[in-house]
Amino acid sequence: MTRRIAILGASGYAGREVARLVAGHPELHTEFAMSARPGVTPAEPELPHDPAILPLDLDRLSQVEGVFVCAPHGAAAGLVHAALEAGTKVVDLSADFRLTDPAVYAKTYGLEHPHPELLPEAVYGLTEHARDDVSNARLVANPGCYPTSISLPLVPLLQAGLIDIDGGIVADCKSGTSGAGASPQARTHFGNVHDNFLAYGVGDHRHTPEIHAHCGTSNIIFVPHLLPVFRGILATLYVRPQEGVTCADVLACLDEAYAAEPFVRLYARGLPELDRVARTNFCDIAARSAGDRIVLVAAIDNLVKGAAGQAVQNMNLMLGLAEEAGLR
Amino acid sequence: MTRRIAILGASGYAGREVARLVAGHPELHTEFAMSARPGVTPAEPELPHDPAILPLDLDRLSQVEGVFVCAPHGAAAGLVHAALEAGTKVVDLSADFRLTDPAVYAKTYGLEHPHPELLPEAVYGLTEHARDDVSNARLVANPGCYPTSISLPLVPLLQAGLIDIDGGIVADCKSGTSGAGASPQARTHFGNVHDNFLAYGVGDHRHTPEIHAHCGTSNIIFVPHLLPVFRGILATLYVRPQEGVTCADVLACLDEAYAAEPFVRLYARGLPELDRVARTNFCDIAARSAGDRIVLVAAIDNLVKGAAGQAVQNMNLMLGLAEEAGLR
Amino acid sequence: MTRRIAILGASGYAGREVARLVAGHPELHTEFAMSARPGVTPAEPELPHDPAILPLDLDRLSQVEGVFVCAPHGAAAGLVHAALEAGTKVVDLSADFRLTDPAVYAKTYGLEHPHPELLPEAVYGLTEHARDDVSNARLVANPGCYPTSISLPLVPLLQAGLIDIDGGIVADCKSGTSGAGASPQARTHFGNVHDNFLAYGVGDHRHTPEIHAHCGTSNIIFVPHLLPVFRGILATLYVRPQEGVTCADVLACLDEAYAAEPFVRLYARGLPELDRVARTNFCDIAARSAGDRIVLVAAIDNLVKGAAGQAVQNMNLMLGLAEEAGLR
Amino acid sequence: MTRRIAILGASGYAGREVARLVAGHPELHTEFAMSARPGVTPAEPELPHDPAILPLDLDRLSQVEGVFVCAPHGAAAGLVHAALEAGTKVVDLSADFRLTDPAVYAKTYGLEHPHPELLPEAVYGLTEHARDDVSNARLVANPGCYPTSISLPLVPLLQAGLIDIDGGIVADCKSGTSGAGASPQARTHFGNVHDNFLAYGVGDHRHTPEIHAHCGTSNIIFVPHLLPVFRGILATLYVRPQEGVTCADVLACLDEAYAAEPFVRLYARGLPELDRVARTNFCDIAARSAGDRIVLVAAIDNLVKGAAGQAVQNMNLMLGLAEEAGLR
Repeated sequence: MTRRIAILGASGYAGREVARLVAGHPELHTEFAMSARPGVTPAEPELPHDPAILPLDLDRLSQVEGVFVCAPHGAAAGLVHAALEAGTKVVDLSADFRLTDPAVYAKTYGLEHPHPELLPEAVYGLTEHARDDVSNARLVANPGCYPTSISLPLVPLLQAGLIDIDGGIVADCKSGTSGAGASPQARTHFGNVHDNFLAYGVGDHRHTPEIHAHCGTSNIIFVPHLLPVFRGILATLYVRPQEGVTCADVLACLDEAYAAEPFVRLYARGLPELDRVARTNFCDIAARSAGDRIVLVAAIDNLVKGAAGQAVQNMNLMLGLAEEAGLR
Repeated sequence: MTRRIAILGASGYAGREVARLVAGHPELHTEFAMSARPGVTPAEPELPHDPAILPLDLDRLSQVEGVFVCAPHGAAAGLVHAALEAGTKVVDLSADFRLTDPAVYAKTYGLEHPHPELLPEAVYGLTEHARDDVSNARLVANPGCYPTSISLPLVPLLQAGLIDIDGGIVADCKSGTSGAGASPQARTHFGNVHDNFLAYGVGDHRHTPEIHAHCGTSNIIFVPHLLPVFRGILATLYVRPQEGVTCADVLACLDEAYAAEPFVRLYARGLPELDRVARTNFCDIAARSAGDRIVLVAAIDNLVKGAAGQAVQNMNLMLGLAEEAGLR
Repeated sequence: MTRRIAILGASGYAGREVARLVAGHPELHTEFAMSARPGVTPAEPELPHDPAILPLDLDRLSQVEGVFVCAPHGAAAGLVHAALEAGTKVVDLSADFRLTDPAVYAKTYGLEHPHPELLPEAVYGLTEHARDDVSNARLVANPGCYPTSISLPLVPLLQAGLIDIDGGIVADCKSGTSGAGASPQARTHFGNVHDNFLAYGVGDHRHTPEIHAHCGTSNIIFVPHLLPVFRGILATLYVRPQEGVTCADVLACLDEAYAAEPFVRLYARGLPELDRVARTNFCDIAARSAGDRIVLVAAIDNLVKGAAGQAVQNMNLMLGLAEEAGLR
Repeated sequence: MTRRIAILGASGYAGREVARLVAGHPELHTEFAMSARPGVTPAEPELPHDPAILPLDLDRLSQVEGVFVCAPHGAAAGLVHAALEAGTKVVDLSADFRLTDPAVYAKTYGLEHPHPELLPEAVYGLTEHARDDVSNARLVANPGCYPTSISLPLVPLLQAGLIDIDGGIVADCKSGTSGAGASPQARTHFGNVHDNFLAYGVGDHRHTPEIHAHCGTSNIIFVPHLLPVFRGILATLYVRPQEGVTCADVLACLDEAYAAEPFVRLYARGLPELDRVARTNFCDIAARSAGDRIVLVAAIDNLVKGAAGQAVQNMNLMLGLAEEAGLR
């Protein structure tokens, strides 16, 4: 039986990627895709996975069972509220419900949280770490792309106590340009990205509080970089293991956490590369010894496992479908 | 008065870049360019900066005053020896004379050093840190590209005692493909690099002993990555400052070290980007606070400041020319 | 019921693309993938669509119903012969059975045709133009990538007599690097392709006789170019219409030919772009008036509609499956 | 003796490229660079070739001897008028003075020509074809990038009567994105250009009347395409030679026209590639036989020979300097 969903904020990269995945999903159907910028003309000829983008009309939300909110932070919270009022399940791909403390939200995003009353029930949807809560949630806050690439390799090790947190954790992340959005701007002008590479947001990127909150420590230095590719994040993480902990211990811990997971692949040899995860929902992870540190390398497609794919994975659970449906 | 130089190993990227720089140099002239692979046909029509590449003929070395050895490690040492015998000054761009200990060389490069008797007199030519020694040297070992991108920002801070070495230093470096050479291989096949990004050599890259030796500490974790660009290295360095040391202290230290340097540019605001240093001999450096760490970002063109440009800078000093000649 | 197929020459780009498509095909199963270069280690971890690549063992061919031959020209013919002897259907992706005249083959490819006795029964498998013959064939010669991008827009117009052939036809084609194969070579070294663009094979490209033969005229000038992208061919074709023939007539003719075709999309407005056909089996076509000429623009993914996708489309017909199976 | 010049419209790619070239010019000095968009912050640290960009102040024009107008069409004409009033020589890089007929200008650019009274004295500055007129001009209209890539190979052949114009001429041109300007827009958003390729402006590109006017025939079909590179235009031209005219005749004609030219290189073998002309003022040209046509391939850097380089070349002549000054 087909389940009807809606996409709100459908003109951006995340919204389009949700539309693409739902088009190939055996049980989900995009009942409508809406945007505050509906003027976007569909490509010609209309591609099968490009539904027409309509103006926002929240009265129609009662026609669907699930809503993907792909609007920018700040704008998303109101759409989430409307969808919950209409009785649907909601996966919010924005940052609006990722931070539990509205004060941290206000400081990080520079505005008062529009619907703090919904924060307590929002489930942070890093699926592999919150499967049961996601399954029972009305509202899932889909994790940020950078936090996904960091939390998946790191959290099992932190929880197992294998890492010397006082030794400091470095998360040096590199992302393709799709993370910066579909709207033309100087930062993603071809002439400024092509044949170039740079660090940005050193010490003050907005994903930092999310990373600290969900890894359970603020002792993580996060520096993002902009790659001249469209899709993908590669995270290189440097941790100091607790005394006596070896790289084999780290690999064993990750193996225990993820051996049964359909979307996490551990490398016994070799190292992840962006093009092995492009257009997939996989997170590929490797660990290596280097001096007195363990180096973890993780790769995801920021638009799939870092956004739309994880959102579909969460929606599948919320609607009682097979978790992998539409993602293989 | 024009000074005659020779390029040995002229068919690779470093050799070609030396030829390009010398072609625009007001006082140097490429008397001959030789290669063990002379069959390489020059482009058609011959570009002004592409000298014909001849077979190796070491008898001609006495015709020049300076020799740039651009051959692979192992092969370079013999050419260096021959050039010194012929009475020329030598800048060796290979790794053969960068490590002072032949045992470390043997372990790192998998072969006995062909001319260990020359190691004691070789000067490690990170120009800004060894100007006087370079000026008086017969033989300069031109630093590796990655070590240059790490030593320039790091060494002044280490020497000033601003860094807590026990806190660990992370050097996360990203390089364009030209560092992997001009010979076609799977690693630099277009289909494997384009739209891709990856880490390699984690924990065992050959530049690691050179980095440790010239920074004076083995407490540096070095991980290189391969960017889908041709030129450039961006190094992101994470250090823990000594208690009480601020980012302003770090910037002041770098400013004292480099304010008068023609090829090092410090950023008071903004961050280095690869395309600002492409085809220049500059090393651009910025420092930022992030948590309890200082993050240093440095950018060079690996073929210029990381190879041919620094080699010309050194040769200028060795021949008594202005250090900046041919490099602006 | 699953139908078993084999892939011979599985280590190249075309073979891997067939493997990828068959992995997602509801009715085909790769029984084995073989290569004369079996040493290619599969990626680690093995991706679901990467079957292990075995050494060639032609005795096993009787275990399958269909064989995709992805070997280079010259080597392919013998494999085709062996597969037919074993009683399978064969789609040959090489050039060995595309030219009906063995003398033209010998002149074009510089070797005597290894199995000229099979030429008469080989069907040139431009599916849309040869559907019935393909359905009844034992052996289909899968068209070349460039010829596919030219024949699909051009042949209906030629057959309808809309084009003044004496006016000359220009086919200016631009291809990604995957057309040059998976083996590292100077032509596809990253440093030679990235940020570059060039024409090659002007006047003597090997696809020229195939284009002339299947368009039915030698009055087509074909010039290929190499794009710094991995996938895709964009063909820009310039034709002089017969007197009185308008661009609307041309569009009507194409519409009549292709309106019912699942894999050809005509543009009423807009123009094809490579990224709209990437990883699809579509051929997108537009026509525009320019001076006294009609300009046709066609785009395909050279690895899909220009190779593996069309091969699967043909195999589907040969095995009695739905033509679109595994290609949507 | 240094000659002072000004750059008006300095914030775009052409203006920046003029600034870069003048910074390396032995006899020109940028007295000031102005822009209607002066807010553009210079890079940090200021690069030597990045002069500060001031607001427009036309009263200062009398301080310089030469003015490079790099403003958009429409806006440029007024600046040209002001500079001439101030008594300077002017090279206008916009389209405002390239078309002699104001009616054609109005139709092509959609606005009345702001200063038609200046059209008669404007010299179309394709330097190699108008050296004497440029030397004596007050006002030079610098040719468009596409027209430069077409006129240089074509005009000598047309003037020598080697081409059958009735046979039709096809100019299939491919350009990097810098031709589309420095302002962020959807067309040059990284995600829309990278890994993509497309034709545009088929039959109605604004350079068409300029091409027709300066080649002296409207029988040229011009189709531009957008390459995923930053710099460069490669033009592939298809002409039918007059009966009895061979490719050798064509090459001899080009050789006679250009053998003494410092910035045109003819290929006896091999074909031009974009990266051989990048950041140079060269136009590389080859000719090949293909069927009954001659195929000409020409390559330029659109920002240098197609804009700023040719502008400096013209200004050199206008100020009585060596034509090659600052361009080698």
